[in-house]
Amino acid sequence: MGRPQVFKDIGHLLTMRGALKKEGRRVDSRDLAIVKNASLVVEDGRVLWLGPSRSLPTTYKKVKSLSLHGRWVYPGFVDCHTHMIFAGDRSDEFELRNRGVAYQEIASRGGGILSTVKATRKATMGSLVQSAQMRVQEHLAQGVTTIEIKSGYGLDHKSEMKILKAARELKKARIVPTFLGAHAIPKEAKNAKDYLESLQRTLLEIKREGLAQRVDIFIEKGYFNSSEAKAYLSFARDLGFQIAIHADQLSESGGTQLALELRALSADHVICLGPMSKKKLAQSETTAVLLPSADFFLQCEYPDARKLIEHGARIALATDFNPGSSPTQNIQFVGLLARLKMKMSLPEVFSAFTVGGAYALGRQHECGALDKGYFADFFVSKRPWQQFFYNLSLDSVDETYVGGRRMHRSNASFN
Amino acid sequence: MGRPQVFKDIGHLLTMRGALKKEGRRVDSRDLAIVKNASLVVEDGRVLWLGPSRSLPTTYKKVKSLSLHGRWVYPGFVDCHTHMIFAGDRSDEFELRNRGVAYQEIASRGGGILSTVKATRKATMGSLVQSAQMRVQEHLAQGVTTIEIKSGYGLDHKSEMKILKAARELKKARIVPTFLGAHAIPKEAKNAKDYLESLQRTLLEIKREGLAQRVDIFIEKGYFNSSEAKAYLSFARDLGFQIAIHADQLSESGGTQLALELRALSADHVICLGPMSKKKLAQSETTAVLLPSADFFLQCEYPDARKLIEHGARIALATDFNPGSSPTQNIQFVGLLARLKMKMSLPEVFSAFTVGGAYALGRQHECGALDKGYFADFFVSKRPWQQFFYNLSLDSVDETYVGGRRMHRSNASFN
Repeated sequence: MGRPQVFKDIGHLLTMRGALKKEGRRVDSRDLAIVKNASLVVEDGRVLWLGPSRSLPTTYKKVKSLSLHGRWVYPGFVDCHTHMIFAGDRSDEFELRNRGVAYQEIASRGGGILSTVKATRKATMGSLVQSAQMRVQEHLAQGVTTIEIKSGYGLDHKSEMKILKAARELKKARIVPTFLGAHAIPKEAKNAKDYLESLQRTLLEIKREGLAQRVDIFIEKGYFNSSEAKAYLSFARDLGFQIAIHADQLSESGGTQLALELRALSADHVICLGPMSKKKLAQSETTAVLLPSADFFLQCEYPDARKLIEHGARIALATDFNPGSSPTQNIQFVGLLARLKMKMSLPEVFSAFTVGGAYALGRQHECGALDKGYFADFFVSKRPWQQFFYNLSLDSVDETYVGGRRMHRSNASFN
Repeated sequence: MGRPQVFKDIGHLLTMRGALKKEGRRVDSRDLAIVKNASLVVEDGRVLWLGPSRSLPTTYKKVKSLSLHGRWVYPGFVDCHTHMIFAGDRSDEFELRNRGVAYQEIASRGGGILSTVKATRKATMGSLVQSAQMRVQEHLAQGVTTIEIKSGYGLDHKSEMKILKAARELKKARIVPTFLGAHAIPKEAKNAKDYLESLQRTLLEIKREGLAQRVDIFIEKGYFNSSEAKAYLSFARDLGFQIAIHADQLSESGGTQLALELRALSADHVICLGPMSKKKLAQSETTAVLLPSADFFLQCEYPDARKLIEHGARIALATDFNPGSSPTQNIQFVGLLARLKMKMSLPEVFSAFTVGGAYALGRQHECGALDKGYFADFFVSKRPWQQFFYNLSLDSVDETYVGGRRMHRSNASFN
C-alpha cells in the first residue's frame, strides 16, 4: 500500500457521477456533477476520497498535499477509437485529393491505406514505439489519459504482432490495444474469407501472449461482409475477446446489426443507419462511437447523433486518429464538430469523451469519471467547462495525471 | 548599431522569396524558395544576410551564433484580420445556437455583438491589455509574429480610444492597429449617417495621437451601406488613413466595388461576389482577405478562392478572431479549411499567411518573407512544410522570434 496524497484547493471538480449513474444516456449539465472547493485523495493510483474540502476526513489532513490553486479538475478523457501505431506519412495525399486527384488514381500511384501498410511492415518495432510514444504525449497534453489503439496496418501475422507488441511498450497513458487484423484485405490474400481464416492463428497467439482483449473488423463493401465477419468474430468471442465493429460508415452494410447480435461493446461510425437500426442500437448495451473528424476529412455525412440520443443511445466520441481519413489527434476539434455539425450539447460531448468512451472499452468501472475506487486519471485546467470544445485553443490543459502521477505539464509561458 | 548574430545549422529555410517576387499571385511550391543547410544573420532586428551556410561571408564566422540543430525556419505568419481586443465571453451563445435558438432570440436576451460591446465598455484598459496579451502569446505559440487588431467593440469615442490605447500597450508581437468604429451602429445612435459623422472626431484624435494608420468599415444590410461608407472612408483617406473593408460577406452590398474605387489595401470576406467583381478584384492591387473559420462557425458559404486565384488575385488568409462568429485563434485550422473547403494548395496557404497578409497590411517590404532588410521575424519547427495546415497538432512550433529575439518557446516535454 502506498501512502495517500491529497490534491487540495480544487476550485471545481467535474466528477461525471451523474452521467455515470445514467450509464451515459440522455445526459444534461447536472450530470457533470461538479463539486466546488474540493479535495481529491489518491492512494495506489486510485481515488480514495473526494468531496468538498470542508468535509475532508481528519485522517487526510496531515498527509502529503498539493495545492491546485483554485483551478478546475476534470476526469481524464478517453479516446476509444484510434489507429495510432503506423509508419509513414500521407500528408502529400491530402494535398493531391484537394487538387481533385481521385482516390483510385492515388492508390494506383502507391498511395492510400496500402502505402501505410507498406511503411508499417518495413518499420522496426522500435521506430513504431518511438513515433507512437510522441503521439501519446500529444494526447496527454490534451488531457486524454486512456487511449484505445487498433492494429491493422500490418495485415500479416508478423506485422500485426509487431504492432501489438509496440502498443505494449507505450508508457505514461493507459493503452487499450485492439486487434484489427481485419482492417482491409492485403494484396497477397486470395479473398476475404481466406484472409479471415488466416487471422485465427494470430488471434490464438494474441490470446496466448495476452497482447489484446479486443477484436475489431471493418464491415463495408470491398472489405468484409457481415456473414464473413460473423464467423470470424464468433471465433474470437469464443476465445474470450471483446468485440467492436467499424459499422455502416460508407453504406448500410449490416455492421450495426451484427454488433447488436454479438453484443459488441461498440458499433463505430454508424452513419448509414435506417430509423429502426438507430432505435435498436439506442436501446442496446452497445455504445455508439461517433467519429466526426473522419466525416470532416472525408467530407461525408455526419451520424445522426440527435436521433440516437433521443432514443436513449449511449454515445462516445473519439478521434479515429489515422494517417488517411482522420489525420488529427485534436479532441477539441472532434468535440467542436460534434457541437456544430451534430448538434450535441456540451454536456453530451463531455459525457461522450469520458463515461461514453469508458463504456465503449468496457472500463466504465475504473475510468471516465472521478469517484471512489476509480483511477486517479485527471487533468487540471484554468478553464471552466463551458470553454471546452469551442475555440481550439492550444492552452486548455495545464497538467495531466495518470494514476495520480503527473505525466504532462504545459508550457509555462501561457500561464 | 547592434552586433550581428548568426542563426546556424538551419536544415531548411523557407524564404517565400518567389511568392514575394510574384506579389503573392498564382504561387506554387517553387515560390516557397527553400534554402537548404542555411544560415541567417540578424542585426538590429533585421535580416542582414541569409543563404547556404557554405557561402556565409567570413566576417560573420566569428560573431555570436546559435545552432538550430537542423530544424526548419519559417517566416513569422501574419494574421491580417482580427478583433482580438474585447471583454466577456460568448461561449454560452455558441451552445444556444447549436441547440437551435435563433440569433434574434439570443440578441433579445442580451447576447450577440452588443453583449461584447457592453462588456468592453465596462472593462478597464488594464484588463483589456491583460486578456489581449494572453491572446498575443497564443498567436506567438503558433508562429504568428504580426497581428492586425481592429477596434470596434467600443462604438463610442471613449471606448474606441480605450481599445486603441490598449493595442498600443501589447508586447512581444508586432501589432498593427485598425480603427473599426464603424463595426455596427450603437443602440444610442440616431442612424448610420449620424454615427459615421460622429466618428470623424475620433478619427482626428486617432490621427493626432498616432494610434492607428488604418480604417475599416462593415458594409452590409443593417450595418453601413456603400454610399455612407464612401463619404466616411473618403474623409479618412484624406487624413492619410489606409483603408480596409468588410466586404460582401453575407450579401453582395457593394463593399468590394468601393474597395477598388478607393484603392483599399484589402477587401475582407468577399464571399458574395459576381463573376465580374471577382475578376476586377483579382486584377486590382487590393488584397482579397479570406476568413474561412468565420464561414465554418456561421455555417455559410466559403469564398470562391479558386476562381479568384485563377484570375490572378493576391490572397491573404486570416483568423477573423472575435468572440462571436470566429471564436478561434487557431491558424492551422484556418489553413486546413482553406485546403479542404476552398481547395487552396498548400503553397497558396503559406503565401496567404505570409506575403498575402503582409500586402493586406501594406507591410510587404518588411514582413511576410525572409530576405535582406526584412524583420527577423521567424519561427523554428521540426516539421517540414508539408505537415502544416493539416493535422491541427499542438506541437507545430518550437520557438518564435520577433526582431531576432525569442518571444516563445514550446513545451520541452514534446521534444
